[in-house]
Amino acid sequence: MGFFITFEGIEGCGKTTQAKKLYEYLNMLGFKTHLTKEPGGTLIGSEIRRILLSQWEEKFPPIAELLLYEADRSIHINNVIKPLLQQDYIVVSDRFYDSTTAYQHYGRGIDYNFVDFLNKTVTEGLKPDITFLLDISVEEAFKRLDRKKDRIENESLDFHRKVREGFLIIAEKEKDRFIILDATKSPDDIFQEVLKALKERKVI
Amino acid sequence: MGFFITFEGIEGCGKTTQAKKLYEYLNMLGFKTHLTKEPGGTLIGSEIRRILLSQWEEKFPPIAELLLYEADRSIHINNVIKPLLQQDYIVVSDRFYDSTTAYQHYGRGIDYNFVDFLNKTVTEGLKPDITFLLDISVEEAFKRLDRKKDRIENESLDFHRKVREGFLIIAEKEKDRFIILDATKSPDDIFQEVLKALKERKVI
Repeated sequence: MGFFITFEGIEGCGKTTQAKKLYEYLNMLGFKTHLTKEPGGTLIGSEIRRILLSQWEEKFPPIAELLLYEADRSIHINNVIKPLLQQDYIVVSDRFYDSTTAYQHYGRGIDYNFVDFLNKTVTEGLKPDITFLLDISVEEAFKRLDRKKDRIENESLDFHRKVREGFLIIAEKEKDRFIILDATKSPDDIFQEVLKALKERKVI
Repeated sequence: MGFFITFEGIEGCGKTTQAKKLYEYLNMLGFKTHLTKEPGGTLIGSEIRRILLSQWEEKFPPIAELLLYEADRSIHINNVIKPLLQQDYIVVSDRFYDSTTAYQHYGRGIDYNFVDFLNKTVTEGLKPDITFLLDISVEEAFKRLDRKKDRIENESLDFHRKVREGFLIIAEKEKDRFIILDATKSPDDIFQEVLKALKERKVI
């Protein structure tokens, strides 16, 4: 039934780089592998992603943001993640529902039970087999963002600090699933730790 | 605190025509009036509307559809409906949450409690003061659709029959709020009944 790997962390933590490195490495080893992301892992999802990350003059209520992320996830799971896991793929996703808990609950302050209920309803029990959390301070991470910030990245440092703390709380609750990595290390050092964890779990 | 009027019914029932007629009439009488619609009553919402009504090759899970309608509604309420009602406007909307109950619960079969919970969470207690349901058989209504059908209109006749029945059940539950109109009558005759109901309620 395949294997589902997710990368999580705040903006600028380096998870996109690690997800790509892992995808290329698994491909090289001959595994059936798919690299995907949230939001925007599908065609419909890329339209939702554009809405979520654009700057708007209108108010963007936190609950609308939450509902759009969950809609994207439902489309992503049904079109990409589930069908590929059923075909025995290793699916590597840059963000999944832990991001929604971290950003929409810990960051925006939406009730935990509501966020958790939507996560569970939309995923219908699908959980990552392993989740790498790239942990880094907001100050360090933001030094790396050299392009123009999107709507979410443009939030206050305080917002992103809450998100980082949120990720650590989530990881603490599910120690078996999470591997916390020090994202201030070099990409190659971090990648060695990713491979070590996958070897220990006999994925590769 | 303004007055909130909604028009509901299946595709081709004539609610858009009636909503426009009412908007123009109220304007003529000198009322502060705003004509709006769901989905797509805002800039962000028109992007969501485009996603919802486009044809896609990807699967569009019913729950994703539900979440997108609710996201649109949250943005609509916060940017348009609530601020205008607070400025004493008469707000006329072509569809509101009764459509979500009719299409996503009665049509798609999503659990009633889930749809109702999302409707209530997103509206935070905001209800239409009066709702006109334009009732007509699916066969009659579809004869009037002369343009290319969108993704929802393109559903089976059976789907639309369930939606029509759903609207009638919803109206039956809230007799004080709903006025059911025979949508096979002429637009002018229907409009006279709309005005009669508003005069009886001393709105105009």
